[in-house]
Amino acid sequence: MNVDERHLTATAPKYPSVMYGLIGKITAAAGKRDELVSILLGSTGSMPGCLSYVIATDPADPDGLWITEVWDSAASHQDSLTLPAVQAAIARARPLIAAFSNRVETVPIGGYGLGKTAAR
Amino acid sequence: MNVDERHLTATAPKYPSVMYGLIGKITAAAGKRDELVSILLGSTGSMPGCLSYVIATDPADPDGLWITEVWDSAASHQDSLTLPAVQAAIARARPLIAAFSNRVETVPIGGYGLGKTAAR
Repeated sequence: MNVDERHLTATAPKYPSVMYGLIGKITAAAGKRDELVSILLGSTGSMPGCLSYVIATDPADPDGLWITEVWDSAASHQDSLTLPAVQAAIARARPLIAAFSNRVETVPIGGYGLGKTAAR
Repeated sequence: MNVDERHLTATAPKYPSVMYGLIGKITAAAGKRDELVSILLGSTGSMPGCLSYVIATDPADPDGLWITEVWDSAASHQDSLTLPAVQAAIARARPLIAAFSNRVETVPIGGYGLGKTAAR
């Protein structure tokens, strides 16, 4: 390994080879969807290892939200649940949630629009 | 409108206010999933209005793929289907696809990891 290679190794982002994805539907308590969206939008700012986290409404269900997530590893997703900002958001969101459904775990391979992970 | 406003209008990316999302599962013909992934990965490079297009395998189904998409508008998604590169990919992919399922249209609101749209 020459000096240039060491430099690259030291500075390149560390992406484990297997990404982790989640797709799921959240049904908000009646009339609480917009409030829930605000909480979710506010909690996606700096989650290490998060490559994509998209919050979408369901035009066929006035209480429905779809969340699609891509993480650089399953461990990063798991770790995110312990972040104080995420725990605070979960505590505020829980009373607004009627149900979770349609949950699918995936292994994202690639595509377009995957963000860079926040600094750890 | 003053000069500065005109300048902003002329150069700012044009995002319609309502994004368009798609979530769906593709079941590949037996043994053809990886070939299908290659075709899909090769077709996501420059689709105007595409903000996210993630291809993921389903660890619970050896033939299963999940595609999650975010577009700046429903029209951009519709227009993408007429792009020569996309039409060529569809023609190559079709014989490798056994079924489409779990299709959900969404209205993405925001989050993290939405790419910039390719130049039109």
